[in-house]
Amino acid sequence: MSKRDKMMRAIIKPDRSPGLKLVDVPIPTPGPREALIKVAATSICGTDMHIFKWDPWAQSRILPPVIVGHEFCGQVVEVGEVVGEVKIGDFVSAESHIICHACTPCRTGRGHLCQNTQIIGVDRDGCWAEYIVMPAENLWINPSDMPLEVASLQENFGNAVHTAFAADVTARRVLVTGCGPVGLMAIMVAKAAGARTIYATDIANYRLHMARQMGADLALNVSEGNAYQAILDDTNGEGVDVLLEMSGAPQAIDLGFRLLRFGGEAALLGLAPSGIPFDINNHVVLKGATVHGIVGRELWATWYRMRGLLSSGLIDLTRVITHRFALDDYEKALRVMQSGQSGKVVMFPEGVRET
Amino acid sequence: MSKRDKMMRAIIKPDRSPGLKLVDVPIPTPGPREALIKVAATSICGTDMHIFKWDPWAQSRILPPVIVGHEFCGQVVEVGEVVGEVKIGDFVSAESHIICHACTPCRTGRGHLCQNTQIIGVDRDGCWAEYIVMPAENLWINPSDMPLEVASLQENFGNAVHTAFAADVTARRVLVTGCGPVGLMAIMVAKAAGARTIYATDIANYRLHMARQMGADLALNVSEGNAYQAILDDTNGEGVDVLLEMSGAPQAIDLGFRLLRFGGEAALLGLAPSGIPFDINNHVVLKGATVHGIVGRELWATWYRMRGLLSSGLIDLTRVITHRFALDDYEKALRVMQSGQSGKVVMFPEGVRET
Amino acid sequence: MSKRDKMMRAIIKPDRSPGLKLVDVPIPTPGPREALIKVAATSICGTDMHIFKWDPWAQSRILPPVIVGHEFCGQVVEVGEVVGEVKIGDFVSAESHIICHACTPCRTGRGHLCQNTQIIGVDRDGCWAEYIVMPAENLWINPSDMPLEVASLQENFGNAVHTAFAADVTARRVLVTGCGPVGLMAIMVAKAAGARTIYATDIANYRLHMARQMGADLALNVSEGNAYQAILDDTNGEGVDVLLEMSGAPQAIDLGFRLLRFGGEAALLGLAPSGIPFDINNHVVLKGATVHGIVGRELWATWYRMRGLLSSGLIDLTRVITHRFALDDYEKALRVMQSGQSGKVVMFPEGVRET
Amino acid sequence: MSKRDKMMRAIIKPDRSPGLKLVDVPIPTPGPREALIKVAATSICGTDMHIFKWDPWAQSRILPPVIVGHEFCGQVVEVGEVVGEVKIGDFVSAESHIICHACTPCRTGRGHLCQNTQIIGVDRDGCWAEYIVMPAENLWINPSDMPLEVASLQENFGNAVHTAFAADVTARRVLVTGCGPVGLMAIMVAKAAGARTIYATDIANYRLHMARQMGADLALNVSEGNAYQAILDDTNGEGVDVLLEMSGAPQAIDLGFRLLRFGGEAALLGLAPSGIPFDINNHVVLKGATVHGIVGRELWATWYRMRGLLSSGLIDLTRVITHRFALDDYEKALRVMQSGQSGKVVMFPEGVRET
Repeated sequence: MSKRDKMMRAIIKPDRSPGLKLVDVPIPTPGPREALIKVAATSICGTDMHIFKWDPWAQSRILPPVIVGHEFCGQVVEVGEVVGEVKIGDFVSAESHIICHACTPCRTGRGHLCQNTQIIGVDRDGCWAEYIVMPAENLWINPSDMPLEVASLQENFGNAVHTAFAADVTARRVLVTGCGPVGLMAIMVAKAAGARTIYATDIANYRLHMARQMGADLALNVSEGNAYQAILDDTNGEGVDVLLEMSGAPQAIDLGFRLLRFGGEAALLGLAPSGIPFDINNHVVLKGATVHGIVGRELWATWYRMRGLLSSGLIDLTRVITHRFALDDYEKALRVMQSGQSGKVVMFPEGVRET
Repeated sequence: MSKRDKMMRAIIKPDRSPGLKLVDVPIPTPGPREALIKVAATSICGTDMHIFKWDPWAQSRILPPVIVGHEFCGQVVEVGEVVGEVKIGDFVSAESHIICHACTPCRTGRGHLCQNTQIIGVDRDGCWAEYIVMPAENLWINPSDMPLEVASLQENFGNAVHTAFAADVTARRVLVTGCGPVGLMAIMVAKAAGARTIYATDIANYRLHMARQMGADLALNVSEGNAYQAILDDTNGEGVDVLLEMSGAPQAIDLGFRLLRFGGEAALLGLAPSGIPFDINNHVVLKGATVHGIVGRELWATWYRMRGLLSSGLIDLTRVITHRFALDDYEKALRVMQSGQSGKVVMFPEGVRET
Repeated sequence: MSKRDKMMRAIIKPDRSPGLKLVDVPIPTPGPREALIKVAATSICGTDMHIFKWDPWAQSRILPPVIVGHEFCGQVVEVGEVVGEVKIGDFVSAESHIICHACTPCRTGRGHLCQNTQIIGVDRDGCWAEYIVMPAENLWINPSDMPLEVASLQENFGNAVHTAFAADVTARRVLVTGCGPVGLMAIMVAKAAGARTIYATDIANYRLHMARQMGADLALNVSEGNAYQAILDDTNGEGVDVLLEMSGAPQAIDLGFRLLRFGGEAALLGLAPSGIPFDINNHVVLKGATVHGIVGRELWATWYRMRGLLSSGLIDLTRVITHRFALDDYEKALRVMQSGQSGKVVMFPEGVRET
Repeated sequence: MSKRDKMMRAIIKPDRSPGLKLVDVPIPTPGPREALIKVAATSICGTDMHIFKWDPWAQSRILPPVIVGHEFCGQVVEVGEVVGEVKIGDFVSAESHIICHACTPCRTGRGHLCQNTQIIGVDRDGCWAEYIVMPAENLWINPSDMPLEVASLQENFGNAVHTAFAADVTARRVLVTGCGPVGLMAIMVAKAAGARTIYATDIANYRLHMARQMGADLALNVSEGNAYQAILDDTNGEGVDVLLEMSGAPQAIDLGFRLLRFGGEAALLGLAPSGIPFDINNHVVLKGATVHGIVGRELWATWYRMRGLLSSGLIDLTRVITHRFALDDYEKALRVMQSGQSGKVVMFPEGVRET
């Protein structure tokens, strides 16, 4: 195959310092159980920003050089010899967590809690490139008419779906703390699932504005007023049935649990600074609360849920996308993300496509 | 109180034979823990038809004379001396099942399975009358701006809500077998809760037409074609995730379970003729299915769910109402119900009200 | 009734300072829905110690004078006019939480989370007395041959049962942090329910010795060695499936969550100092853990579970009782409790009975 | 490897007629992801009897010639080139269901409901032989000191564990209908999990005698008295909380559901004749029952539960074994099974071993 001789463009973390770099690297070769995918669209996640900025988490986890990026879609262009899951030409998205199938979580149907997970763009080469090799079992075949940018977003959408489905939101009052992209998508899910009322909090008005567009009934800036009292009043003093914590901010966690009603459910996705003060007595024990820690996406139950939400038209993910760039303009794209004035940002290796 | 001296109109089952009768009876007096409600609207249920027709079930259960009817709303006009739940003037609907609080189901939070339940309009005087006495604890206070006919329908709506919430319908394929009023409302609930696709079956085109209006994506007359194949094809051969069985028809039960996917969930509300042949092996055991029998409404979890669905505007129950009558015209109303050419039929003791 | 003229002995918190006092007070009279019980045995709980010592919690909650004590059994000697639940002569224990039946938790089968709970011996007169009046609905009829001291312990046993049944312990590795009386009873429950291995931690060797007697496979003093490593090693590095946190000690909470495996379940009963540092990221979010806050006893599901465990002989509560006193010797009894060298301590208004 | 040239003894279904045959066949060769196991012990299941007798089910499913048998343990003697799960020398048991990993159940953690399952000894060569090739992922490594006959029984034990864990048996009244080997093991599981009372029914006194030995509190021959009344009386008229249906007999299914209390749970493993009359109204709908169909073993949650029950000593499977034979004496072994006068029957390719 002639592409073997060719090189591809890729965005890498070149060394142990801030920044990323566009380089030419060889197109990788799939192993027997892997597939090579030509990347059609790839989106930016908060994790990518950590790697870009080279923050302490990135310093502790990333071993440069590595191609970054873990949200994408594309077309299968080559398959290993024992691959049965996909065939050349399939339009696929991918589960970014490559699991071991051997640990206890893996062997009991909870692969999203695999203790040996390898994440693309973190622990091995990612998708901010023209091509990527993936284990065939990590691929999810999309309908051929799904917009590229929607297909790319599914991995991240899955975080929102996993979180929102951990609790029971239908006909209930739901509070979403944190209106970054995953929070915004969680609002969409709660709306699609028939939440009674959706409350949203953040510290950025740009995001709160988007939250309202996604379906939040009341979106409040916690730095501008008494969100606690406003939400308590709006629930007739009863509090919310469900907390979806998407921010990791200590104040948001505290606010969310204070507003949770007795016997309520909380699903926590946001990552907090370690060792924050937490009123475990009043927030959990005395409240008789049930709390769910959320990681990744259930394999593959979350993806089936996504299929239901997307194929039925209940959710239109393009509404959460605010910016589109060519992959080569990744620096502009990262700057937009950094500004906080964005929803999801999608990049296209072959230039921006209208979809 | 002067009303004590007055009489009220009421529709009773006068003796052990078909038919009902409009009579004057004394307005009842509430006991210490009861309330007297002036009935504003009352709706017709299949159970009322059984009593009207005096079928074998009615013959085995009803002890005439008794005032019929169990779906209603109205205004509290008098309360017993130890009543704290409601006050005079409250606009209320009512849970029709009066429970014992002493049996094991009652004592473990499952009062809807009370083994000593008394149902109004069946085991004691009902609501097809100008006034009714109810235990105060059976009353549910409505917002004052809820339409009368919606408030009346809540008891019956609760059957649909209880059934649909027994399974997990969000983002899933749902089959509703039987499109009588409760089936139609179950379709509305599945729609509000974000079902992926809603399939509906019946033998009456009138009802299937309504099913489509309520949100069914594919509504099929089982007597006119191969519903099994059509639904299987539409699910790419995968079958449905959830069966909501609302008909009690043996053919519908069989069809529903055949279409249920491996590991699917079924919630059964419809009452079948006893001892029907049932392929328990293929329908339940080998399918790894989970089956939920549904009775009444969860006290009061179902009512809170209803509040969520109605107060948010997710569901507009007026859409399922096709006919309105003055209570005095109950014979016309029953004839409409009997024709099968109706959704819910509501009656008003003071004459038809526009709401 | 002549007893009306008589007085009874009772242990009260007389005023806002440390200590308790034995006094004579009138025998109370039951209201229409209440019963008068002649107390046969009563046991000491940590809550009673807080009231005795007049710690900050007690200062904020208790309004003297009030009769203390909330664990007891006895014989019904008088019933109010509308009482149907019990009759004179019944041998009863009591649920100490008197609930409102009106709040959302109460109305949805979760009365143990009632927002208006009144606890006997805390918010109203308790059972360290010759007689107590209770709402009849709070009484639980015991088999007549149940030992008095076992019957008295049921309220507290219910905390252990509620906690242990919140998670799924059968055939699993369970860690109980805190081996006070409730921790010891939780060990008994986990043992009876077929736990694979039971680990227990505490800081007192007396209690760890008892923990082993109750069924702990490995009981470790956290102040004397590396309990974390020892338990990790014993589980082949996998950690425990279930954490039952009964201590409220920050170190125990931290240890317990560190030992919890990915995807594990924690049930928290112990009350921690407010605002402790808590590694919510690693303990809950990234671990995909499910955490249950536990309050009181499920009404009455927990009591039915208790009946199953006790009537089958699976659990013998006498094994957790180390001391018995006459009620008049309450000061000796409190001193024993305070020493930390005890399991449950039971007191008898009529003098110590061999059962 | 020299064994390549050698042949092995194996029990096969040679053609489409009753009976089995001991033959010499080549020792199979493992593929890249498979392992070759030297069979140490193998046990007889009801399925094997169907194949032996060549009943309608067998006629519809089996394509001779095929080596029969699906319960076994043994030692890994050769592994394919990409096998990581096991290594030569490991002492293993095996999950008999080989799943596709591609269907919806497989992809959502419910592989036991795989729609393309291949069962060894049914759809491909089984284990009544000196050697068997298995996919490495189907192997479960045992502790080296586990008795061979216990290791062989685990597959079948898993059916009992899966059934008993589908419901919540701890501290509850449990009825096991059908006391064949799986029913007997279900009794052991219910006992180990702390059931309040275990009721058992069968039509064979031999089995009822064993049921009592396994822990049944009341074991009744339904052909000799009124089992319904006896169990109802023993439960004070309340019925049982949980039904574990292990027989497939229509009368047992009917009896079990009649005895199930309102709101109870049933787990159904037994396979009934198709289309039996079933009182779905009174047994499921009006009872508010929850019914679980059970197939195979949860992969691998059930195996982890088994490990917990066996490694803790809570269950000693040797108690359910009544007969041991050399594999060559398979005809004697089958005759014992056919007599109904047996528990589990284990065969050893190298002759009966004392363990």
